[in-house]
Amino acid sequence: MNPRKILVAQGGGPTAVINQSLAGVVLEARRHRGVELVYGARHGVRGIVNEDLVDLTQETSHNLEMVAATPASALGSTRDKPDIKYCQEIFKVLQAHEIGQFYYIGGNDSSDTVRIVSEQAQAANYALRCIHIPKTIDNDLVGNDHTPGFPSAARFVAQAFAGANLDNAALPGVYVGVVMGRHAGFLTAASALGKKFADDGPHLIYVPERVFEVEKFLADVKATYERFGRCVIAVSEGIHDAAGTPIISTLAKELEHDAHGNVQLSGTGALADLLCEEIKQRLGIKRVRGDTFGYLQRSFIGCVSDVDQREAREVGEKAVQFAMWGGSDGSVAIKRAGYYAADYELLPLSAVAGKTRTMEDEFIAPNGTDVTDAFRLYLRPLLGSGMPDAYRLRPNPVAKVLNR
Amino acid sequence: MNPRKILVAQGGGPTAVINQSLAGVVLEARRHRGVELVYGARHGVRGIVNEDLVDLTQETSHNLEMVAATPASALGSTRDKPDIKYCQEIFKVLQAHEIGQFYYIGGNDSSDTVRIVSEQAQAANYALRCIHIPKTIDNDLVGNDHTPGFPSAARFVAQAFAGANLDNAALPGVYVGVVMGRHAGFLTAASALGKKFADDGPHLIYVPERVFEVEKFLADVKATYERFGRCVIAVSEGIHDAAGTPIISTLAKELEHDAHGNVQLSGTGALADLLCEEIKQRLGIKRVRGDTFGYLQRSFIGCVSDVDQREAREVGEKAVQFAMWGGSDGSVAIKRAGYYAADYELLPLSAVAGKTRTMEDEFIAPNGTDVTDAFRLYLRPLLGSGMPDAYRLRPNPVAKVLNR
Repeated sequence: MNPRKILVAQGGGPTAVINQSLAGVVLEARRHRGVELVYGARHGVRGIVNEDLVDLTQETSHNLEMVAATPASALGSTRDKPDIKYCQEIFKVLQAHEIGQFYYIGGNDSSDTVRIVSEQAQAANYALRCIHIPKTIDNDLVGNDHTPGFPSAARFVAQAFAGANLDNAALPGVYVGVVMGRHAGFLTAASALGKKFADDGPHLIYVPERVFEVEKFLADVKATYERFGRCVIAVSEGIHDAAGTPIISTLAKELEHDAHGNVQLSGTGALADLLCEEIKQRLGIKRVRGDTFGYLQRSFIGCVSDVDQREAREVGEKAVQFAMWGGSDGSVAIKRAGYYAADYELLPLSAVAGKTRTMEDEFIAPNGTDVTDAFRLYLRPLLGSGMPDAYRLRPNPVAKVLNR
Repeated sequence: MNPRKILVAQGGGPTAVINQSLAGVVLEARRHRGVELVYGARHGVRGIVNEDLVDLTQETSHNLEMVAATPASALGSTRDKPDIKYCQEIFKVLQAHEIGQFYYIGGNDSSDTVRIVSEQAQAANYALRCIHIPKTIDNDLVGNDHTPGFPSAARFVAQAFAGANLDNAALPGVYVGVVMGRHAGFLTAASALGKKFADDGPHLIYVPERVFEVEKFLADVKATYERFGRCVIAVSEGIHDAAGTPIISTLAKELEHDAHGNVQLSGTGALADLLCEEIKQRLGIKRVRGDTFGYLQRSFIGCVSDVDQREAREVGEKAVQFAMWGGSDGSVAIKRAGYYAADYELLPLSAVAGKTRTMEDEFIAPNGTDVTDAFRLYLRPLLGSGMPDAYRLRPNPVAKVLNR
């Protein structure tokens, strides 16, 4: 199969390397003799239904390379989650433009869109190859060792906590850093990779895979503070109580902050502020500071894993190769091969679509507030080369003269 | 003068390069034949009064170099602001340990401490050379072209906004980024250096040097949103109304968020959340997100200006040279020499101590929400080499088929 026209789009939250996948698709597709036109849809599926398309065949290879190294979705993205009717509209436009291959770079919602569009094409007996290309900083796609975008975000989080730990050691107190991840704690757990010395923070890590109990949390903080004279905490925005209610809601209610009673998790500093308030009020610790890493962790320009860049590029390239020489639609997945190398395979769309992966038990320490060595071994090679390293002065105390 | 013992300490908020200055002092001092011992005080002036001293003569040059490249204060810092009595205690310890030179790396409060200790020594007729070494991410020391630590923090802010702008272009809406700086807007203004294309954000920049009016702010946001379909805003944590009341207080009152009624500016996401709430409620824009850069902007490991590193190292080295071969106490200051080179001089302590520099008028655009080219020219060389650059796809629209 050698289609004359192909279309690519980007969906969901941008990442540091999603444009690598875009460049992988475009540059690989342009190599193929039968491909006349490579279209891109502006702002994901919304751009398709609105026929807001651009011709990427007219873009220079050089600029595509520069865009590949630029974070965020160069075609624009969307938060639209298409239902059947929406997918019918998508298919109508693909048909009208005689598109032979449809590539959608996105998370599990995007893979579900690809699955439905694929079914529509089959039902209409229209020859359309549909490929989902993975991306998400949450690392929550099933069937993948990890997903492009996660390693760079993880690197940002690890570097942020390495620095926050140094700052906290210089001016001791309690520091709470809130990290993205509604259901999966991978990104929050990445904070552990910022640790070097035994007494470094983060001393406590809370992921949504474990029930969060405020009383237990306060006891953990108290014990750590008494032991080290300080405490650095990594918290996932998605932490919840035993009933599944987000902690941001339960705390907001308890402290009567009305405007914080909603459950918007990202783009607000409320959870960090509420946790800090609890620590101040209940433990009587004065210097308590909270940061919400917010959009920085997925959009910061200049903090990227070279391993992530390479793999994001390759999933784009492989997508085109699977489409050109393979016989079925599917979702490109990363497999781990050796320590450390990556390989790629095409999974059935139904195996990935709409499913959510969370952290495996073997990655979470029994106490529920730390990661295991298995997780460190899993994540370290993904962070790439040139990770900054923290050094400290060795203690050589001077004998006191006045206060012997 | 060739003293047998010298002492160095670090005060105030840590920076990405304050350890360069520490290494500069220690390594340069150890070159001098008469210097037998180089002491460091743990946690600034508090470590001096507590006689919590370490012997830096016993630290390897190699580890000092590695520590120099590590952010935050390796000796530890303090927020203590010594009064006369406190300074008398400092002097008593320096005298007891027969310290001949006292180096304090810090901001304007620290320079005032050095000034008072210097006066005590003179009054007691005790031979003590006192040198203040500048550092502050706020860039608010008078008599300096700029201060070590500011360029690296400015680079973080510029990179953060370059990325946030890309993210906001991919998923349009309003984005508010709150930047440190209680009185001086330099760091917030640095966000402008993240712009590349004419329609890039930050579209609006608010510094504490200008009165912040909520109504004017909402009108600015509305106009920008209507023009670009999105709006990226940089706000200094120190913005205040005409009476000097912090906006965080006035808004908290207006929206009845009790727990946010205090004036803790850093370590809380309240200001960003309050501004977002205003925009949502008053302008009816749905996608409004706020980030508070918090401690990341001063502690993030792996985002540093090489120019800043070099200069921070040199102010430490020069401090020792001024002390060894100069005849007076003082504060080391950076002078701009050419485009771009730096030189150093020793200012009288009284010229720097306790004074606060704010942004010069020529750096702020007449409309009050942008910087001038003079500011861009001032800041760009300080950000150093290898600044990441953002690229975008060129528009090549495809003709519509269905909706012509």
